[in-house]
Amino acid sequence: MIDKEQISVAFQNLQDHICNELESLDGKGKFEEDLWERKGGGGGRTRIIKGQHIVKGGVNFSAVHGLLDMKIAASLSLPNRNFYATGVSIVLHPENPWVPIIHMNIRYFESGNKWWFGGGIDLTPHYVIKEDAQFFHQSLKEVCETYSPTAYPAFKEWADNYFYIRHRSETRGIGGIFFDQLNESKGNKESLFKFVINVGTAFVPIYTQLFTNNYLKDYSQENKVWQSYRRGRYVEFNLVWDRGTKFGLETNGRTESILMSLPPMAQWAYNLEIEEGSLEQTTQDSLKQNIDWIS
Amino acid sequence: MIDKEQISVAFQNLQDHICNELESLDGKGKFEEDLWERKGGGGGRTRIIKGQHIVKGGVNFSAVHGLLDMKIAASLSLPNRNFYATGVSIVLHPENPWVPIIHMNIRYFESGNKWWFGGGIDLTPHYVIKEDAQFFHQSLKEVCETYSPTAYPAFKEWADNYFYIRHRSETRGIGGIFFDQLNESKGNKESLFKFVINVGTAFVPIYTQLFTNNYLKDYSQENKVWQSYRRGRYVEFNLVWDRGTKFGLETNGRTESILMSLPPMAQWAYNLEIEEGSLEQTTQDSLKQNIDWIS
Repeated sequence: MIDKEQISVAFQNLQDHICNELESLDGKGKFEEDLWERKGGGGGRTRIIKGQHIVKGGVNFSAVHGLLDMKIAASLSLPNRNFYATGVSIVLHPENPWVPIIHMNIRYFESGNKWWFGGGIDLTPHYVIKEDAQFFHQSLKEVCETYSPTAYPAFKEWADNYFYIRHRSETRGIGGIFFDQLNESKGNKESLFKFVINVGTAFVPIYTQLFTNNYLKDYSQENKVWQSYRRGRYVEFNLVWDRGTKFGLETNGRTESILMSLPPMAQWAYNLEIEEGSLEQTTQDSLKQNIDWIS
Repeated sequence: MIDKEQISVAFQNLQDHICNELESLDGKGKFEEDLWERKGGGGGRTRIIKGQHIVKGGVNFSAVHGLLDMKIAASLSLPNRNFYATGVSIVLHPENPWVPIIHMNIRYFESGNKWWFGGGIDLTPHYVIKEDAQFFHQSLKEVCETYSPTAYPAFKEWADNYFYIRHRSETRGIGGIFFDQLNESKGNKESLFKFVINVGTAFVPIYTQLFTNNYLKDYSQENKVWQSYRRGRYVEFNLVWDRGTKFGLETNGRTESILMSLPPMAQWAYNLEIEEGSLEQTTQDSLKQNIDWIS
Protein backbone atom coordinates (compact mmCIF):
# COMPACT_ATOMS: atom_id res chain seq x y z
CA MET A 1 0.00 0.00 0.00
CA ILE A 2 1.20 3.49 -0.83
CA ASP A 3 2.76 5.21 2.16
CA LYS A 4 3.11 8.78 3.33
CA GLU A 5 6.63 9.17 1.96
CA GLN A 6 5.46 8.17 -1.52
CA ILE A 7 2.57 10.61 -1.30
CA SER A 8 4.90 13.37 -0.17
CA VAL A 9 7.31 12.67 -3.04
CA ALA A 10 4.45 12.73 -5.56
CA PHE A 11 3.32 16.06 -4.14
CA GLN A 12 6.83 17.50 -4.47
CA ASN A 13 7.04 16.32 -8.06
CA LEU A 14 3.72 17.98 -8.73
CA GLN A 15 4.98 21.22 -7.20
CA ASP A 16 8.06 21.08 -9.48
CA HIS A 17 5.93 20.42 -12.54
CA ILE A 18 3.46 23.21 -11.78
CA CYS A 19 6.19 25.77 -11.07
CA ASN A 20 7.89 24.99 -14.37
CA GLU A 21 4.69 25.34 -16.32
CA LEU A 22 3.70 28.59 -14.59
CA GLU A 23 7.09 30.13 -15.32
CA SER A 24 6.58 29.35 -19.01
CA LEU A 25 3.10 30.84 -18.89
CA ASP A 26 4.27 34.04 -17.24
CA GLY A 27 7.23 34.31 -19.60
CA LYS A 28 9.31 36.38 -17.21
CA GLY A 29 8.85 35.69 -13.50
CA LYS A 30 10.84 32.97 -11.76
CA PHE A 31 9.86 31.22 -8.56
CA GLU A 32 11.99 31.95 -5.53
CA GLU A 33 12.13 29.20 -2.98
CA ASP A 34 12.25 29.35 0.80
CA LEU A 35 13.01 26.09 2.55
CA TRP A 36 11.72 26.10 6.09
CA GLU A 37 11.66 23.75 9.00
CA ARG A 38 8.95 23.35 11.58
CA LYS A 39 10.03 23.24 15.21
CA GLY A 40 7.78 20.29 16.02
CA GLY A 41 8.88 18.29 12.95
CA GLY A 42 9.01 18.49 9.17
CA GLY A 43 8.99 21.59 7.00
CA GLY A 44 8.26 22.87 3.55
CA ARG A 45 9.22 24.49 0.30
CA THR A 46 7.47 27.82 -0.19
CA ARG A 47 7.80 29.08 -3.75
CA ILE A 48 6.76 32.57 -4.68
CA ILE A 49 6.58 34.21 -8.11
CA LYS A 50 6.37 37.94 -8.84
CA GLY A 51 5.90 37.80 -12.57
CA GLN A 52 4.73 40.12 -15.32
CA HIS A 53 1.31 38.46 -15.61
CA ILE A 54 1.14 36.39 -12.43
CA VAL A 55 1.99 39.30 -10.14
CA LYS A 56 1.74 37.45 -6.85
CA GLY A 57 1.67 33.69 -6.81
CA GLY A 58 2.59 30.97 -4.38
CA VAL A 59 3.03 27.25 -4.98
CA ASN A 60 3.75 25.68 -1.61
CA PHE A 61 4.65 22.20 -0.56
CA SER A 62 4.85 21.07 3.03
CA ALA A 63 5.20 17.82 4.96
CA VAL A 64 4.93 18.27 8.69
CA HIS A 65 4.62 15.88 11.59
CA GLY A 66 4.69 15.79 15.35
CA LEU A 67 2.16 15.99 18.14
CA LEU A 68 -1.21 17.64 17.72
CA ASP A 69 -2.75 19.91 20.28
CA MET A 70 -5.00 17.80 22.58
CA LYS A 71 -8.16 19.69 21.67
CA ILE A 72 -7.57 19.34 17.94
CA ALA A 73 -6.79 15.62 18.24
CA ALA A 74 -10.02 15.16 20.19
CA SER A 75 -12.06 17.17 17.70
CA LEU A 76 -10.77 14.96 14.87
CA SER A 77 -11.48 11.74 16.87
CA LEU A 78 -7.89 10.62 16.38
CA PRO A 79 -6.47 7.48 17.99
CA ASN A 80 -3.55 9.53 19.38
CA ARG A 81 -1.86 12.91 19.02
CA ASN A 82 0.76 11.84 16.50
CA PHE A 83 0.14 13.24 13.06
CA TYR A 84 1.65 13.55 9.62
CA ALA A 85 0.32 16.05 7.08
CA THR A 86 1.54 16.80 3.59
CA GLY A 87 0.11 18.95 0.83
CA VAL A 88 0.45 21.33 -2.07
CA SER A 89 -1.28 24.68 -1.96
CA ILE A 90 -1.50 27.29 -4.72
CA VAL A 91 -2.91 30.78 -5.07
CA LEU A 92 -2.23 32.92 -8.14
CA HIS A 93 -3.10 36.62 -8.43
CA PRO A 94 -2.93 37.97 -12.00
CA GLU A 95 -2.13 41.49 -13.19
CA ASN A 96 -4.90 41.50 -15.79
CA PRO A 97 -8.35 41.79 -14.19
CA TRP A 98 -9.84 39.57 -16.92
CA VAL A 99 -7.71 36.68 -15.68
CA PRO A 100 -9.24 34.98 -12.62
CA ILE A 101 -7.63 34.33 -9.26
CA ILE A 102 -7.18 30.57 -8.88
CA HIS A 103 -6.66 28.39 -5.83
CA MET A 104 -5.74 24.72 -5.64
CA ASN A 105 -4.94 22.51 -2.70
CA ILE A 106 -4.36 18.79 -2.25
CA ARG A 107 -3.48 17.25 1.06
CA TYR A 108 -2.99 14.01 2.93
CA PHE A 109 -3.36 13.53 6.68
CA GLU A 110 -2.45 10.55 8.81
CA SER A 111 -2.64 9.74 12.51
CA GLY A 112 -2.07 6.21 13.79
CA ASN A 113 -4.14 3.92 11.57
CA LYS A 114 -6.39 6.77 10.41
CA TRP A 115 -5.74 8.64 7.17
CA TRP A 116 -7.56 10.78 4.64
CA PHE A 117 -7.12 12.93 1.57
CA GLY A 118 -8.60 16.35 0.92
CA GLY A 119 -8.34 19.12 -1.61
CA GLY A 120 -10.00 21.07 -4.35
CA ILE A 121 -9.72 23.77 -7.01
CA ASP A 122 -11.80 26.93 -7.05
CA LEU A 123 -11.92 30.03 -9.18
CA THR A 124 -12.41 33.69 -8.28
CA PRO A 125 -12.87 35.72 -11.45
CA HIS A 126 -12.81 39.49 -11.03
CA TYR A 127 -15.26 39.43 -13.94
CA VAL A 128 -17.32 36.30 -14.43
CA ILE A 129 -17.01 35.15 -18.04
CA LYS A 130 -19.65 32.55 -18.81
CA GLU A 131 -17.64 30.45 -21.27
CA ASP A 132 -14.64 30.33 -18.94
CA ALA A 133 -16.84 29.37 -16.00
CA GLN A 134 -18.41 26.60 -18.06
CA PHE A 135 -15.02 25.31 -19.22
CA PHE A 136 -13.73 25.42 -15.64
CA HIS A 137 -16.58 23.43 -14.15
CA GLN A 138 -16.72 21.01 -17.09
CA SER A 139 -13.01 20.28 -16.61
CA LEU A 140 -13.53 19.66 -12.90
CA LYS A 141 -16.47 17.39 -13.66
CA GLU A 142 -14.24 15.31 -15.91
CA VAL A 143 -11.56 15.05 -13.22
CA CYS A 144 -14.17 14.03 -10.66
CA GLU A 145 -15.44 11.31 -12.98
CA THR A 146 -12.05 9.61 -12.81
CA TYR A 147 -13.06 8.93 -9.21
CA SER A 148 -16.82 8.55 -9.22
CA PRO A 149 -19.76 9.56 -11.44
CA THR A 150 -21.46 11.26 -8.47
CA ALA A 151 -18.43 13.11 -7.11
CA TYR A 152 -18.72 16.34 -9.11
CA PRO A 153 -22.12 17.50 -7.86
CA ALA A 154 -21.21 16.58 -4.28
CA PHE A 155 -17.79 18.28 -4.35
CA LYS A 156 -19.19 21.26 -6.24
CA GLU A 157 -21.83 21.78 -3.53
CA TRP A 158 -19.11 21.41 -0.91
CA ALA A 159 -17.12 24.21 -2.58
CA ASP A 160 -20.23 26.44 -2.80
CA ASN A 161 -20.70 26.01 0.93
CA TYR A 162 -17.05 26.35 1.87
CA PHE A 163 -16.10 29.38 -0.22
CA TYR A 164 -18.93 31.49 1.12
CA ILE A 165 -18.46 34.95 2.62
CA ARG A 166 -21.26 34.80 5.18
CA HIS A 167 -21.09 38.46 6.23
CA ARG A 168 -21.52 39.49 2.58
CA SER A 169 -24.03 36.78 1.65
CA GLU A 170 -21.93 36.08 -1.42
CA THR A 171 -19.60 33.35 -2.64
CA ARG A 172 -15.89 34.10 -2.96
CA GLY A 173 -16.05 33.35 -6.67
CA ILE A 174 -17.69 30.76 -8.87
CA GLY A 175 -16.67 27.86 -6.65
CA GLY A 176 -15.25 24.66 -8.08
CA ILE A 177 -14.70 21.48 -6.13
CA PHE A 178 -13.84 20.91 -2.48
CA PHE A 179 -13.47 17.60 -0.68
CA ASP A 180 -12.15 16.33 2.60
CA GLN A 181 -11.99 13.17 4.72
CA LEU A 182 -11.62 10.91 1.70
CA ASN A 183 -10.73 7.80 3.71
CA GLU A 184 -11.09 4.02 3.45
CA SER A 185 -14.87 4.38 3.60
CA LYS A 186 -14.69 6.34 0.31
CA GLY A 187 -12.39 4.06 -1.69
CA ASN A 188 -9.09 2.26 -1.44
CA LYS A 189 -6.05 4.35 -0.72
CA GLU A 190 -4.50 3.87 -4.18
CA SER A 191 -7.59 5.02 -6.03
CA LEU A 192 -8.09 8.02 -3.75
CA PHE A 193 -4.45 8.95 -4.16
CA LYS A 194 -4.82 8.66 -7.90
CA PHE A 195 -7.83 10.95 -7.86
CA VAL A 196 -6.03 13.57 -5.80
CA ILE A 197 -3.08 13.45 -8.18
CA ASN A 198 -5.52 13.82 -11.08
CA VAL A 199 -6.87 16.98 -9.44
CA GLY A 200 -3.35 18.33 -9.02
CA THR A 201 -2.43 17.41 -12.59
CA ALA A 202 -5.55 19.06 -14.00
CA PHE A 203 -4.49 22.38 -12.52
CA VAL A 204 -2.01 23.36 -15.24
CA PRO A 205 -4.18 22.73 -18.33
CA ILE A 206 -7.18 24.39 -16.66
CA TYR A 207 -5.29 27.50 -15.60
CA THR A 208 -3.38 27.65 -18.89
CA GLN A 209 -6.61 27.90 -20.84
CA LEU A 210 -8.17 30.53 -18.55
CA PHE A 211 -4.94 32.52 -18.57
CA THR A 212 -4.44 32.28 -22.33
CA ASN A 213 -8.02 33.33 -23.05
CA ASN A 214 -7.64 36.56 -21.12
CA TYR A 215 -4.14 37.74 -20.31
CA LEU A 216 -3.72 39.93 -23.39
CA LYS A 217 -7.11 41.61 -23.12
CA ASP A 218 -7.14 45.39 -22.74
CA TYR A 219 -8.36 46.77 -19.47
CA SER A 220 -9.17 50.18 -18.07
CA GLN A 221 -8.37 51.91 -14.80
CA GLU A 222 -11.99 51.18 -13.79
CA ASN A 223 -11.36 47.48 -14.38
CA LYS A 224 -8.28 47.65 -12.11
CA VAL A 225 -10.26 49.39 -9.36
CA TRP A 226 -12.97 46.74 -9.55
CA GLN A 227 -10.25 44.06 -9.37
CA SER A 228 -9.00 45.72 -6.17
CA TYR A 229 -12.46 45.59 -4.61
CA ARG A 230 -12.83 41.93 -5.54
CA ARG A 231 -9.40 41.29 -4.04
CA GLY A 232 -10.70 42.96 -0.88
CA ARG A 233 -13.43 40.34 -0.67
CA TYR A 234 -10.79 37.65 -1.22
CA VAL A 235 -8.94 39.02 1.82
CA GLU A 236 -12.16 39.06 3.85
CA PHE A 237 -12.88 35.43 3.05
CA ASN A 238 -9.38 34.22 3.75
CA LEU A 239 -8.90 36.08 7.02
CA VAL A 240 -12.42 35.73 8.44
CA TRP A 241 -13.78 32.40 7.18
CA ASP A 242 -11.11 30.17 5.69
CA ARG A 243 -10.61 27.33 8.17
CA GLY A 244 -7.15 26.48 6.86
CA THR A 245 -5.91 30.04 7.27
CA LYS A 246 -7.44 30.43 10.72
CA PHE A 247 -6.06 27.09 11.86
CA GLY A 248 -2.61 27.98 10.58
CA LEU A 249 -2.52 31.42 12.18
CA GLU A 250 -3.89 30.20 15.50
CA THR A 251 -1.50 27.26 15.77
CA ASN A 252 1.71 29.12 15.05
CA GLY A 253 1.98 28.05 11.43
CA ARG A 254 4.48 29.77 9.12
CA THR A 255 2.72 33.12 8.64
CA GLU A 256 4.42 34.09 5.39
CA SER A 257 3.52 30.76 3.76
CA ILE A 258 -0.08 30.93 4.96
CA LEU A 259 -0.63 34.55 3.92
CA MET A 260 0.96 34.15 0.51
CA SER A 261 -2.70 33.78 -0.52
CA LEU A 262 -3.35 37.49 0.03
CA PRO A 263 -3.43 39.71 -3.07
CA PRO A 264 -0.65 42.22 -3.80
CA MET A 265 -3.14 45.04 -3.29
CA ALA A 266 -6.77 45.44 -2.26
CA GLN A 267 -9.25 48.26 -1.83
CA TRP A 268 -12.31 48.86 0.33
CA ALA A 269 -15.11 51.39 -0.03
CA TYR A 270 -18.04 51.97 2.26
CA ASN A 271 -21.25 50.74 0.62
CA LEU A 272 -19.68 50.24 -2.79
CA GLU A 273 -22.19 51.17 -5.47
CA ILE A 274 -22.36 49.16 -8.67
CA GLU A 275 -23.86 50.48 -11.86
CA GLU A 276 -27.04 48.71 -12.94
CA GLY A 277 -26.53 46.63 -16.06
CA SER A 278 -22.73 46.81 -15.86
CA LEU A 279 -20.36 43.86 -16.12
CA GLU A 280 -19.56 44.44 -12.45
CA GLN A 281 -23.24 43.96 -11.65
CA THR A 282 -23.38 40.76 -13.71
CA THR A 283 -20.41 39.45 -11.76
CA GLN A 284 -21.89 40.45 -8.41
CA ASP A 285 -25.14 38.68 -9.37
CA SER A 286 -23.16 35.52 -10.15
CA LEU A 287 -21.64 35.24 -6.69
CA LYS A 288 -24.26 32.82 -5.48
CA GLN A 289 -24.42 29.22 -4.40
CA ASN A 290 -26.07 26.48 -6.45
CA ILE A 291 -25.51 27.87 -9.92
CA ASP A 292 -25.28 25.17 -12.57
CA TRP A 293 -22.34 26.47 -14.59
CA ILE A 294 -22.19 23.62 -17.07
CA SER A 295 -25.55 23.38 -18.80
CA MET B 1 -29.07 57.24 38.66
CA ILE B 2 -28.18 57.84 35.03
CA ASP B 3 -30.07 55.51 32.70
CA LYS B 4 -29.38 53.94 29.34
CA GLU B 5 -31.34 56.57 27.41
CA GLN B 6 -29.26 59.36 28.92
CA ILE B 7 -26.07 57.50 28.07
CA SER B 8 -27.26 56.94 24.53
CA VAL B 9 -28.12 60.64 24.11
CA ALA B 10 -24.72 61.68 25.45
CA PHE B 11 -23.08 59.31 22.97
CA GLN B 12 -25.09 60.80 20.11
CA ASN B 13 -24.11 64.31 21.14
CA LEU B 14 -20.50 63.21 21.21
CA GLN B 15 -20.84 61.76 17.72
CA ASP B 16 -22.26 65.10 16.50
CA HIS B 17 -19.46 67.05 18.13
CA ILE B 18 -16.71 64.82 16.77
CA CYS B 19 -18.11 64.85 13.23
CA ASN B 20 -18.26 68.65 13.23
CA GLU B 21 -14.70 68.97 14.44
CA LEU B 22 -13.37 66.42 11.98
CA GLU B 23 -15.05 68.20 9.07
CA SER B 24 -13.29 71.41 10.10
CA LEU B 25 -10.01 69.58 10.37
CA ASP B 26 -10.33 67.99 6.95
CA GLY B 27 -11.46 71.28 5.41
CA LYS B 28 -13.32 69.64 2.54
CA GLY B 29 -14.94 66.25 3.26
CA LYS B 30 -18.43 66.06 4.72
CA PHE B 31 -19.85 63.14 6.63
CA GLU B 32 -22.60 61.20 4.94
CA GLU B 33 -25.04 59.51 7.24
CA ASP B 34 -26.79 56.16 6.93
CA LEU B 35 -29.55 55.54 9.43
CA TRP B 36 -30.15 51.86 9.91
CA GLU B 37 -32.42 49.68 11.94
CA ARG B 38 -31.64 46.34 13.46
CA LYS B 39 -34.19 43.57 12.96
CA GLY B 40 -34.02 42.46 16.58
CA GLY B 41 -34.32 46.01 17.95
CA GLY B 42 -32.62 49.40 17.82
CA GLY B 43 -30.32 50.74 15.14
CA GLY B 44 -27.63 53.26 14.43
CA ARG B 45 -26.22 56.27 12.64
CA THR B 46 -23.23 55.33 10.50
CA ARG B 47 -21.33 58.41 9.34
CA ILE B 48 -18.63 58.16 6.75
CA ILE B 49 -16.24 60.81 5.46
CA LYS B 50 -14.17 60.67 2.27
CA GLY B 51 -12.17 63.82 2.71
CA GLN B 52 -9.03 65.35 1.26
CA HIS B 53 -6.90 64.47 4.30
CA ILE B 54 -9.10 61.97 6.14
CA VAL B 55 -9.59 59.75 3.11
CA LYS B 56 -11.66 57.05 4.77
CA GLY B 57 -13.20 57.69 8.14
CA GLY B 58 -16.16 56.41 10.06
CA VAL B 59 -17.78 57.83 13.19
CA ASN B 60 -20.54 55.43 14.16
CA PHE B 61 -23.19 55.54 16.81
CA SER B 62 -25.47 52.63 17.61
CA ALA B 63 -27.98 51.68 20.28
CA VAL B 64 -29.28 48.16 19.89
CA HIS B 65 -31.35 45.92 22.09
CA GLY B 66 -33.17 42.60 22.02
CA LEU B 67 -32.38 39.04 22.94
CA LEU B 68 -28.85 37.71 23.01
CA ASP B 69 -27.86 34.36 21.62
CA MET B 70 -28.04 31.77 24.45
CA LYS B 71 -24.35 30.89 24.22
CA ILE B 72 -23.26 34.52 24.38
CA ALA B 73 -25.56 35.27 27.32
CA ALA B 74 -24.12 32.28 29.15
CA SER B 75 -20.51 33.26 28.38
CA LEU B 76 -21.19 36.73 29.86
CA SER B 77 -22.88 35.25 32.98
CA LEU B 78 -25.94 37.39 32.36
CA PRO B 79 -29.12 37.14 34.44
CA ASN B 80 -31.20 36.77 31.26
CA ARG B 81 -30.96 37.14 27.49
CA ASN B 82 -32.28 40.70 27.31
CA PHE B 83 -29.63 43.23 26.45
CA TYR B 84 -29.12 46.86 25.57
CA ALA B 85 -25.87 48.10 24.04
CA THR B 86 -24.90 51.56 22.89
CA GLY B 87 -21.62 53.01 21.73
CA VAL B 88 -19.57 55.28 19.54
CA SER B 89 -16.86 53.83 17.35
CA ILE B 90 -14.34 55.70 15.22
CA VAL B 91 -11.62 54.77 12.76
CA LEU B 92 -9.84 57.39 10.63
CA HIS B 93 -7.49 56.60 7.77
CA PRO B 94 -5.42 59.58 6.58
CA GLU B 95 -4.05 60.32 3.13
CA ASN B 96 -0.67 61.48 4.45
CA PRO B 97 1.42 58.55 5.71
CA TRP B 98 2.91 60.77 8.45
CA VAL B 99 -0.54 61.11 10.02
CA PRO B 100 -1.43 58.06 12.13
CA ILE B 101 -4.52 55.86 11.90
CA ILE B 102 -6.61 56.42 15.01
CA HIS B 103 -9.33 54.33 16.62
CA MET B 104 -11.67 55.24 19.46
CA ASN B 105 -14.56 53.37 20.97
CA ILE B 106 -16.77 53.93 24.00
CA ARG B 107 -19.63 51.63 24.88
CA TYR B 108 -22.23 50.79 27.47
CA PHE B 109 -23.86 47.39 27.96
CA GLU B 110 -26.78 46.42 30.13
CA SER B 111 -28.66 43.21 30.83
CA GLY B 112 -31.15 42.96 33.67
CA ASN B 113 -29.48 44.50 36.71
CA LYS B 114 -25.99 44.07 35.25
CA TRP B 115 -24.24 46.87 33.37
CA TRP B 116 -20.78 47.96 32.39
CA PHE B 117 -18.81 50.47 30.35
CA GLY B 118 -15.93 49.77 28.02
CA GLY B 119 -13.81 51.62 25.50
CA GLY B 120 -10.44 53.00 24.59
CA ILE B 121 -8.31 54.96 22.15
CA ASP B 122 -5.35 53.54 20.31
CA LEU B 123 -2.98 54.81 17.66
CA THR B 124 -1.48 53.12 14.61
CA PRO B 125 1.19 55.36 13.11
CA HIS B 126 2.53 54.31 9.72
CA TYR B 127 5.74 55.88 10.97
CA VAL B 128 6.29 56.04 14.70
CA ILE B 129 7.22 59.61 15.69
CA LYS B 130 8.55 59.66 19.23
CA GLU B 131 7.22 63.09 20.23
CA ASP B 132 3.74 62.29 18.90
CA ALA B 133 3.73 58.95 20.69
CA GLN B 134 4.74 60.65 23.93
CA PHE B 135 2.07 63.33 23.56
CA PHE B 136 -0.53 60.67 22.76
CA HIS B 137 0.22 58.51 25.80
CA GLN B 138 0.65 61.52 28.10
CA SER B 139 -2.79 62.77 27.05
CA LEU B 140 -4.34 59.38 27.72
CA LYS B 141 -2.64 59.25 31.10
CA GLU B 142 -4.23 62.57 31.99
CA VAL B 143 -7.67 61.36 30.93
CA CYS B 144 -7.20 58.17 32.95
CA GLU B 145 -6.28 60.22 36.01
CA THR B 146 -9.73 61.81 35.98
CA TYR B 147 -10.87 58.31 36.94
CA SER B 148 -8.06 56.82 38.99
CA PRO B 149 -4.32 57.37 39.50
CA THR B 150 -3.64 53.69 38.69
CA ALA B 151 -5.88 53.41 35.61
CA TYR B 152 -3.39 54.47 32.94
CA PRO B 153 -0.79 51.71 33.44
CA ALA B 154 -3.55 49.09 33.73
CA PHE B 155 -5.49 50.26 30.66
CA LYS B 156 -2.27 50.79 28.70
CA GLU B 157 -1.25 47.19 29.38
CA TRP B 158 -4.72 46.05 28.38
CA ALA B 159 -4.34 47.87 25.03
CA ASP B 160 -0.88 46.35 24.48
CA ASN B 161 -2.40 42.91 24.97
CA TYR B 162 -5.55 43.53 22.96
CA PHE B 163 -4.06 45.23 19.91
CA TYR B 164 -1.57 42.45 19.30
CA ILE B 165 -1.18 40.66 15.96
CA ARG B 166 -0.24 37.25 17.29
CA HIS B 167 0.68 35.70 13.95
CA ARG B 168 3.13 38.57 13.33
CA SER B 169 4.38 38.85 16.91
CA GLU B 170 3.85 42.59 16.65
CA THR B 171 1.44 45.16 18.04
CA ARG B 172 -1.01 46.87 15.69
CA GLY B 173 0.50 50.24 16.52
CA ILE B 174 1.72 51.99 19.65
CA GLY B 175 -1.32 50.97 21.69
CA GLY B 176 -3.09 53.44 23.93
CA ILE B 177 -5.77 52.53 26.45
CA PHE B 178 -8.36 49.76 26.44
CA PHE B 179 -10.84 48.93 29.20
CA ASP B 180 -13.93 46.82 29.61
CA GLN B 181 -16.33 45.60 32.28
CA LEU B 182 -16.19 48.85 34.22
CA ASN B 183 -19.11 48.03 36.51
CA GLU B 184 -20.27 48.80 40.05
CA SER B 185 -17.24 47.02 41.45
CA LYS B 186 -15.05 49.66 39.73
CA GLY B 187 -16.89 52.81 40.74
CA ASN B 188 -20.34 54.33 40.84
CA LYS B 189 -22.20 54.58 37.57
CA GLU B 190 -22.03 58.38 37.38
CA SER B 191 -18.27 58.52 37.83
CA LEU B 192 -17.66 55.72 35.33
CA PHE B 193 -19.96 57.42 32.85
CA LYS B 194 -18.07 60.66 33.37
CA PHE B 195 -14.76 58.90 32.72
CA VAL B 196 -16.03 57.35 29.52
CA ILE B 197 -17.30 60.74 28.33
CA ASN B 198 -13.90 62.20 29.20
CA VAL B 199 -12.28 59.59 26.96
CA GLY B 200 -14.67 60.45 24.15
CA THR B 201 -14.14 64.17 24.64
CA ALA B 202 -10.36 63.81 24.65
CA PHE B 203 -10.49 62.32 21.16
CA VAL B 204 -10.77 65.58 19.22
CA PRO B 205 -7.92 67.54 20.87
CA ILE B 206 -5.64 64.50 20.72
CA TYR B 207 -6.31 63.76 17.06
CA THR B 208 -6.23 67.45 16.15
CA GLN B 209 -2.71 67.78 17.45
CA LEU B 210 -1.43 64.61 15.77
CA PHE B 211 -3.13 65.61 12.52
CA THR B 212 -1.90 69.21 12.62
CA ASN B 213 1.67 68.14 13.36
CA ASN B 214 1.84 66.00 10.25
CA TYR B 215 -0.78 66.50 7.55
CA LEU B 216 1.24 69.01 5.53
CA LYS B 217 4.47 67.02 5.57
CA ASP B 218 5.90 65.98 2.21
CA TYR B 219 5.94 62.30 1.45
CA SER B 220 7.36 60.08 -1.26
CA GLN B 221 5.98 57.18 -3.25
CA GLU B 222 8.03 54.91 -0.96
CA ASN B 223 6.26 56.40 2.06
CA LYS B 224 2.88 55.63 0.43
CA VAL B 225 3.89 52.04 -0.29
CA TRP B 226 4.99 51.56 3.31
CA GLN B 227 1.66 53.05 4.43
CA SER B 228 -0.09 50.42 2.31
CA TYR B 229 1.85 47.60 3.96
CA ARG B 230 1.03 48.97 7.41
CA ARG B 231 -2.60 49.19 6.36
CA GLY B 232 -2.35 45.52 5.38
CA ARG B 233 -1.38 44.68 8.96
CA TYR B 234 -4.32 46.78 10.16
CA VAL B 235 -6.59 44.59 8.01
CA GLU B 236 -4.98 41.44 9.40
CA PHE B 237 -5.56 42.52 12.98
CA ASN B 238 -9.14 43.59 12.43
CA LEU B 239 -10.22 40.53 10.46
CA VAL B 240 -8.27 37.86 12.33
CA TRP B 241 -8.02 39.04 15.94
CA ASP B 242 -10.37 41.91 16.76
CA ARG B 243 -13.07 40.43 18.97
CA GLY B 244 -15.55 43.21 18.19
CA THR B 245 -15.22 42.69 14.44
CA LYS B 246 -15.43 38.90 14.71
CA PHE B 247 -18.43 39.10 17.02
CA GLY B 248 -20.19 41.52 14.67
CA LEU B 249 -19.55 39.49 11.52
CA GLU B 250 -20.50 36.19 13.14
CA THR B 251 -23.73 37.51 14.68
CA ASN B 252 -25.14 39.15 11.57
CA GLY B 253 -24.14 42.69 12.47
CA ARG B 254 -24.32 45.46 9.87
CA THR B 255 -21.32 44.51 7.72
CA GLU B 256 -20.76 47.93 6.16
CA SER B 257 -20.70 49.62 9.58
CA ILE B 258 -18.35 47.02 11.03
CA LEU B 259 -15.95 47.02 8.10
CA MET B 260 -15.79 50.82 7.85
CA SER B 261 -12.60 50.25 9.88
CA LEU B 262 -10.79 48.80 6.85
CA PRO B 263 -8.39 51.11 5.02
CA PRO B 264 -9.18 52.43 1.53
CA MET B 265 -6.29 50.41 0.17
CA ALA B 266 -3.75 47.90 1.43
CA GLN B 267 -0.82 45.96 0.06
CA TRP B 268 0.84 42.67 0.85
CA ALA B 269 4.25 41.34 -0.11
CA TYR B 270 5.76 37.98 0.66
CA ASN B 271 8.52 38.33 3.27
CA LEU B 272 8.65 42.09 3.08
CA GLU B 273 12.22 43.24 3.47
CA ILE B 274 12.97 46.39 5.43
CA GLU B 275 16.18 48.35 5.03
CA GLU B 276 18.42 48.33 8.07
CA GLY B 277 18.58 51.70 9.78
CA SER B 278 15.58 53.07 7.87
CA LEU B 279 12.60 54.86 9.42
CA GLU B 280 10.54 51.84 8.45
CA GLN B 281 12.85 49.66 10.53
CA THR B 282 12.57 52.03 13.49
CA THR B 283 8.81 51.80 13.24
CA GLN B 284 8.86 48.01 12.95
CA ASP B 285 11.10 47.84 16.01
CA SER B 286 8.58 49.94 17.96
CA LEU B 287 5.69 47.56 17.40
CA LYS B 288 6.19 45.82 20.72
CA GLN B 289 4.31 45.49 23.97
CA ASN B 290 5.40 47.13 27.22
CA ILE B 291 7.14 50.18 25.80
CA ASP B 292 7.04 53.15 28.17
CA TRP B 293 6.19 55.94 25.74
CA ILE B 294 6.02 58.73 28.28
CA SER B 295 9.34 58.91 30.08
